[in-house]
Amino acid sequence: MKLPDQEAFDASSTHEDVPAGELESGPSSDPRPDGPLDTDNKELEVPKDPLLFIQLNELLGWPQALEWKETGRWVLFEEKLEVGAGRWSAPHVPTLALPSLQKLRSLLAEGLILLDCPAQSLLELVEQVTRVESLSPELRGQLQTLLLQRPQHHFSTTGTSPCWGPTHPRKASYDEEAPLKEQNPLRQKLPPGAEAGAVLAGELGFLAQPLGAFVRLRDPVVLGPLTEVPLPSRFFCLLLGPPMLGRGYHEMGRAAAVLLSDPQFQWSVRRANSLHDLLAALDAFLEEVTVLPPGRWDPTARISPPKCLPSQHKRFTLQVQVKGLLPPHRAPAEDRHRDGPQAPSVELQRTGRKASWYPSDFLDALHPQCFSAMLYIYLATITNAITFGGLLGDATGGSQPLTILSSTGPVLVFERLLFSFSRDNSLDYLPFRLWVGIWVATFCLVLVATEASVLVRYFTRFTEEGFCALISLIFIYDAVGKMLNLTHDYPIQKHGSPAYGCLCQYPGPGGNESQWTRTRQNDRDDIFSMDLGLVNASLLPPPECVQRGGYPRGPGCHTVPDIAFFSLLLFFTSFLFAMALKHVRTSRFFPSVVRKVLSDFSSVLAILLGCALDAYLGLPTPKLTVPREFKPTLPGRGWLVSPFGANPWWLSVVAALPALLLSILIFMDQQITAVILNRPEYKLRKGAGFHLDLFCVAVLMLLTSVLGLPWYVSATVISLAHMDSLRKESRACSPGEPPSFLGIREQRLTGLMVFILTGVSIFLAPVLKFIPMPVLYGIFLYMGVAALSSIQFIKRVQLLLMPTKHQPDLLLLRHVPLSRVHLFTAIQLACLGLLWIIKSTPAAIIFPLMLLGLVGVRKALEWVFSSQELLWLDELMPEEERSILDKGLEPEHSFSGSDSEDSELMYQPKAPEINISVN
Amino acid sequence: MKLPDQEAFDASSTHEDVPAGELESGPSSDPRPDGPLDTDNKELEVPKDPLLFIQLNELLGWPQALEWKETGRWVLFEEKLEVGAGRWSAPHVPTLALPSLQKLRSLLAEGLILLDCPAQSLLELVEQVTRVESLSPELRGQLQTLLLQRPQHHFSTTGTSPCWGPTHPRKASYDEEAPLKEQNPLRQKLPPGAEAGAVLAGELGFLAQPLGAFVRLRDPVVLGPLTEVPLPSRFFCLLLGPPMLGRGYHEMGRAAAVLLSDPQFQWSVRRANSLHDLLAALDAFLEEVTVLPPGRWDPTARISPPKCLPSQHKRFTLQVQVKGLLPPHRAPAEDRHRDGPQAPSVELQRTGRKASWYPSDFLDALHPQCFSAMLYIYLATITNAITFGGLLGDATGGSQPLTILSSTGPVLVFERLLFSFSRDNSLDYLPFRLWVGIWVATFCLVLVATEASVLVRYFTRFTEEGFCALISLIFIYDAVGKMLNLTHDYPIQKHGSPAYGCLCQYPGPGGNESQWTRTRQNDRDDIFSMDLGLVNASLLPPPECVQRGGYPRGPGCHTVPDIAFFSLLLFFTSFLFAMALKHVRTSRFFPSVVRKVLSDFSSVLAILLGCALDAYLGLPTPKLTVPREFKPTLPGRGWLVSPFGANPWWLSVVAALPALLLSILIFMDQQITAVILNRPEYKLRKGAGFHLDLFCVAVLMLLTSVLGLPWYVSATVISLAHMDSLRKESRACSPGEPPSFLGIREQRLTGLMVFILTGVSIFLAPVLKFIPMPVLYGIFLYMGVAALSSIQFIKRVQLLLMPTKHQPDLLLLRHVPLSRVHLFTAIQLACLGLLWIIKSTPAAIIFPLMLLGLVGVRKALEWVFSSQELLWLDELMPEEERSILDKGLEPEHSFSGSDSEDSELMYQPKAPEINISVN
Repeated sequence: MKLPDQEAFDASSTHEDVPAGELESGPSSDPRPDGPLDTDNKELEVPKDPLLFIQLNELLGWPQALEWKETGRWVLFEEKLEVGAGRWSAPHVPTLALPSLQKLRSLLAEGLILLDCPAQSLLELVEQVTRVESLSPELRGQLQTLLLQRPQHHFSTTGTSPCWGPTHPRKASYDEEAPLKEQNPLRQKLPPGAEAGAVLAGELGFLAQPLGAFVRLRDPVVLGPLTEVPLPSRFFCLLLGPPMLGRGYHEMGRAAAVLLSDPQFQWSVRRANSLHDLLAALDAFLEEVTVLPPGRWDPTARISPPKCLPSQHKRFTLQVQVKGLLPPHRAPAEDRHRDGPQAPSVELQRTGRKASWYPSDFLDALHPQCFSAMLYIYLATITNAITFGGLLGDATGGSQPLTILSSTGPVLVFERLLFSFSRDNSLDYLPFRLWVGIWVATFCLVLVATEASVLVRYFTRFTEEGFCALISLIFIYDAVGKMLNLTHDYPIQKHGSPAYGCLCQYPGPGGNESQWTRTRQNDRDDIFSMDLGLVNASLLPPPECVQRGGYPRGPGCHTVPDIAFFSLLLFFTSFLFAMALKHVRTSRFFPSVVRKVLSDFSSVLAILLGCALDAYLGLPTPKLTVPREFKPTLPGRGWLVSPFGANPWWLSVVAALPALLLSILIFMDQQITAVILNRPEYKLRKGAGFHLDLFCVAVLMLLTSVLGLPWYVSATVISLAHMDSLRKESRACSPGEPPSFLGIREQRLTGLMVFILTGVSIFLAPVLKFIPMPVLYGIFLYMGVAALSSIQFIKRVQLLLMPTKHQPDLLLLRHVPLSRVHLFTAIQLACLGLLWIIKSTPAAIIFPLMLLGLVGVRKALEWVFSSQELLWLDELMPEEERSILDKGLEPEHSFSGSDSEDSELMYQPKAPEINISVN
Repeated sequence: MKLPDQEAFDASSTHEDVPAGELESGPSSDPRPDGPLDTDNKELEVPKDPLLFIQLNELLGWPQALEWKETGRWVLFEEKLEVGAGRWSAPHVPTLALPSLQKLRSLLAEGLILLDCPAQSLLELVEQVTRVESLSPELRGQLQTLLLQRPQHHFSTTGTSPCWGPTHPRKASYDEEAPLKEQNPLRQKLPPGAEAGAVLAGELGFLAQPLGAFVRLRDPVVLGPLTEVPLPSRFFCLLLGPPMLGRGYHEMGRAAAVLLSDPQFQWSVRRANSLHDLLAALDAFLEEVTVLPPGRWDPTARISPPKCLPSQHKRFTLQVQVKGLLPPHRAPAEDRHRDGPQAPSVELQRTGRKASWYPSDFLDALHPQCFSAMLYIYLATITNAITFGGLLGDATGGSQPLTILSSTGPVLVFERLLFSFSRDNSLDYLPFRLWVGIWVATFCLVLVATEASVLVRYFTRFTEEGFCALISLIFIYDAVGKMLNLTHDYPIQKHGSPAYGCLCQYPGPGGNESQWTRTRQNDRDDIFSMDLGLVNASLLPPPECVQRGGYPRGPGCHTVPDIAFFSLLLFFTSFLFAMALKHVRTSRFFPSVVRKVLSDFSSVLAILLGCALDAYLGLPTPKLTVPREFKPTLPGRGWLVSPFGANPWWLSVVAALPALLLSILIFMDQQITAVILNRPEYKLRKGAGFHLDLFCVAVLMLLTSVLGLPWYVSATVISLAHMDSLRKESRACSPGEPPSFLGIREQRLTGLMVFILTGVSIFLAPVLKFIPMPVLYGIFLYMGVAALSSIQFIKRVQLLLMPTKHQPDLLLLRHVPLSRVHLFTAIQLACLGLLWIIKSTPAAIIFPLMLLGLVGVRKALEWVFSSQELLWLDELMPEEERSILDKGLEPEHSFSGSDSEDSELMYQPKAPEINISVN
């Protein structure tokens, strides 16, 4: 399961900081949806610049065999031709030496600048470019021939066998149609409308002085085979000169290419009117470069593309301040933040807009991932149902059947208490429960009517995570507990264990029951020694014994050896296998399609592996069993619960009291889950329905109470697993661009199918009976661990165990003293511990109040922590938010030494943690 | 186990590229030994500059409450004060904005430059610095008071509770002794002789124009409480001026500090005679900075310190070229490389120097790590001995006892064949073997006499890794095979398994043996049904039955349930636990001491865990058993083997033939292990003894043949595990500097103790009998996997499974086409497969020749691959090396487009792979 926090990082980073020009023409082939949150489509007002593909053709082989060769290319990042290995390097952040930029500047300052050049072909362009006074006609001719020469491109078709362009390209004419057009995989990664920029650089001995030219074509033109990808070229840059020390022109060419690949420079140079504008753009670039000292950074080290690109917003703003130009787009970071904390309230003000999504709710499900998600969640649901059903059955003396509906931990705890209470007071449980249910439904309807769901805004991360951690822990506890219970059912044959030996006794002549008498009964150690007399017996295994009409006799007949340890093996195998497969997604091995399938189907594959292992050995492990008929489990009761039963009438009024507690629980359970699932970082487009969902829960509450079915609400862990199994990621990216999280496959089909499948599970029994329970417990454990590890709270708990110097460079830790972070974590831990203890004691009836107490504790924390700290550690509550907005957006005003760069990060508490490690 | 390749990276990187000034005064508190390889101590000729600690004090609080506050510090990397969190950031590569460097340059150009300032105290210094014409006397006074003000330092004493200097420091006088001297943990990380540099920067409203001053003190002086650490200051830089846009002075101060922390700048500025020299040094710095484009790199991102610092050698050389100055040190990288491939031959020319190491051979063992290593290797050896002993016993019909000496896979294979041969030909095995041994000893002595060990130079990485992979695979195969064999001894009780039921029969009245008669013998299905008649029996478990004088009867008496799966659980637990603990070393959790102990003791802890689990459940798992008496196992033979036995005399001559093959095997096995262990990357100081070791092996060969003990040579896997358990790493490092691999605790005590312990193992039986065999098999598997994963070959095999774009950025892949790399790997795989097949067939007798064939295959590869490619993929054989040295050091001369930066990397094939990932 991907960490939501990390998702937050992905979500808040990958795209929002890229300037609009890049973003829209960028590689994410999925159209960016204008979800309900995007009410103001400011972005669309400004025309976007096309994406630019830049190629560096270098002139090599002076003086003997001059030829152009592509040695570098840029889209977002640099790819360098590995000459020895004959392949493109991994995309990396381009690094330059400062002198090459300075040399480029002076070369351009004295060179030929053609802005809006009307050339329509390479020939025309070359003619215009070589119209320089310093060149003699003869040299001009030579230069033109050279420039029209077909360059050598490097293609890697499948990634394994490099395939070069024509080896002797000099013969080929420049306007020949490139036949390799289709083969270049880069072409597919560039969006339609992309333009090219060509940089030609090299040493040319016959030139007396350097020759620099920069051309912006009025209309982009495909310049023959000049660029590897036959895109219309917009920019052309020529940097030639007499041989110089080092690889000066190569580096200058790289500098020009890097400049052109910079979004800000691109934007400026597309609008430049003169050499002055061009140089100003170059100087603006220089003003903002990051400089690494030579003594601490190896210039040949390649820096992998960062997970998030730097914010260009500030740069554009600066540009505006300087030039008085309109910014090409709004600043996404700020707008986004405003949406963030207020998102729930936006949702809550909007209803009735969901209808428009209904068609896509089903069409979006046409993806194999949905099939995997369906299988996974179905198996999880049914296991969950059977586990909780079994627990409920235990807890309520069979009143609650082995169910195929979903119930949650806290509700189970509450119902167990309710049953104990009514049993202790000799009440008729189901009628009493009916009234509780009626009251709860009433209260919930009141909550819906008063739109009380806006209160979810008080459920900050503190409350969400406390609740989520509790639920996850219950999940883990149940998985391990159920597993260990198996060792009670299938005891391990310890040394000296008394359960040993089993005889098969036949009711043959001379043998009868009475002869199974114990001798020396007064000797305790010998309780298993018997005088067998004239028994007609065999040592057949019990099943065969029964088959042959005998009776298995002896203490060892009921023990099944090997099951306990084999179950443990299955449990660990399925858990570890699911974990490992999930991590395949980020592994280096296998093509991405294979990795995607493996990790999407991780739990299903783990279950299949467990089943295969089990089937191979054929041991009688406990299997998943589903009821084969559809009927109430408590004997003697009908489908409907009678309203009073044996209870006095006033009990229906008294039931309002527990109902109040249960309502709190239901409200919290339902809404916290909903809030977690609707976090902005999940990029849900179709909106939430807090009120409607609660209304449905209320109605279901009534129905289940009447029918005596278990009460149920949204199950946090399974819902998170559901979400996670439906993640969408971008596929086609520019080289070096990480796949971005696009959102969730929001549709209704998987959910619907899961419940239909659950409903017809009684018919699936022949298939389901092959699934061993330990395997399902292993998957349970996996879900619990995944849900637990997905919360920031656990990250902070981990900080407790880390020495300061090894802690990750979290933004949180840059701004809040470690002792305060630890204090906050400790308080959360204490709350969690208290909840766990209360849940396990008779005081558990006030458990719902304690959950509500979390909100109170969070409110009280305002006395302990400053709003500043709470903003980093948690989120702000509505009042705090208002107060901090009143104070203005500069939060660290109290200390003038704060970094200016921090102020921008300030309102991106979920911004990416950048943590570079050099292996 | 740390990957040797990675170690090679560590070894070749961490120190060698740092200029000598940094290196010697650096934080590695261990004195750098001048090992036998360092014959020419050129480095010592040049005096080294002391390490510099630089601190930035910023003037904050203008205009109300002016105070100096330390906001940054530098040793190798930058640490920034996290104002909000009140702690130091993690050390990171400093990044600058270009304008701040340019502003600094102009400020210094117009400012006050005092080189060799004779000031003896802060007071004197401040007086000299403020002697500027532009200041009025009044302002000068104000400024002096300000400069004498005690700055606020930030100390973090334990890493959790930040503790600030005096909160109201204005009252404190400057010359007050800092009482916090002892508390600052940074002090311990700086070597003796370190100097300080103080940069003071800030905005001062009353100044009309900027004030810049740069001071180099003639004699370093402790400038009162100016610096956090009370070191004598060498440099002082003051940057003050009227308020400006942004945090100009802060950034300028950072730029000055970064400059001062650059080794090249430091070196120049220590020798500068004028402002011109200073500015030239600054310009030289600017020439070499790495520039990151603003559009592709977030300037606020922090770059973690690289594992290896960039080579300063080239920079110094450049300096020399420009200034005609002597380089301060030799270029370590090149010298190092020369040593690399020729190291064995250097070793081989040197003997008799080992005596001088004898005292340290025992004194160096006084470290807890050695205790862990001893326990680990002892347990590994004894397990290995028992496993191989058992196999040898099987293979030679008991002639080879359960041994406590170490034998290796290939020798085992050979001996098995020898035994089959002599059995098939009705020969007396042990006398025949004696003669083989005598011949082998003779051949080995000849090899020693002819110094044939120089031939190990033909064992390139190709041969080493092929052999090592084979041995590791045999290890893994044996571990898994032995484990699976257990399930034969302890069969799983499958459904319908016939082995069921067990009775305890007492020899009481009425019961006798004859009554255990089978009825219906003709019915095959009923072989277990018996007429028990008047048996006096019970269902007691077999052990108790025997205790009470009964006889366990029935097919189920010999089966022990649950053992098979429990053994599997123990096997996997110990394997996974050992793996996990080994990785604790690089985890973020726990203080480094804890991590070190956990990973050093990983195998011992895993064995203990397995024993504890086993003891807790008390199941009768198979345990480690050692012989309790010291005697030959083959009944009827004496201690010495008779020279002829029943064999004809001429057999002693014929024995020379197999002896020839065995000699090759012994030579290869012994010497390849020795070559692997003596690789330069392990930084062994005490030299190897190829000849002496072979001599010892020859003598032992003779002894063991006479005594009928197994033949043994150096065991690769256990020796590697031994080396790995004795790794030394530096402890005290500058902030951000990774701990460097210092070498191996070379001593004789662990080895000696292991064999003494092995010898007295017969007395340790009462303790050893608690160790379950599955646990030891798990540790075996761990050792095999660790040894296998430590070789570059496996990394290349992994490349086969990786899509091109996900492959790590190995230097290898930058220079050799992927298809060639894959071809090389495929050839190695084919060789390995062939060896495995031959080992498993009757043709195994020629196995030693095949091993030797690896060298031939490698030689033949010269026809397939160029020397260039082989240099990257393997190492060069002696002739190739000579030929490539003749051709000169520029290897890629054939293609003029090669990168200039590559030529330096060229001769560091094991240089670090730089692979930055941004999380």
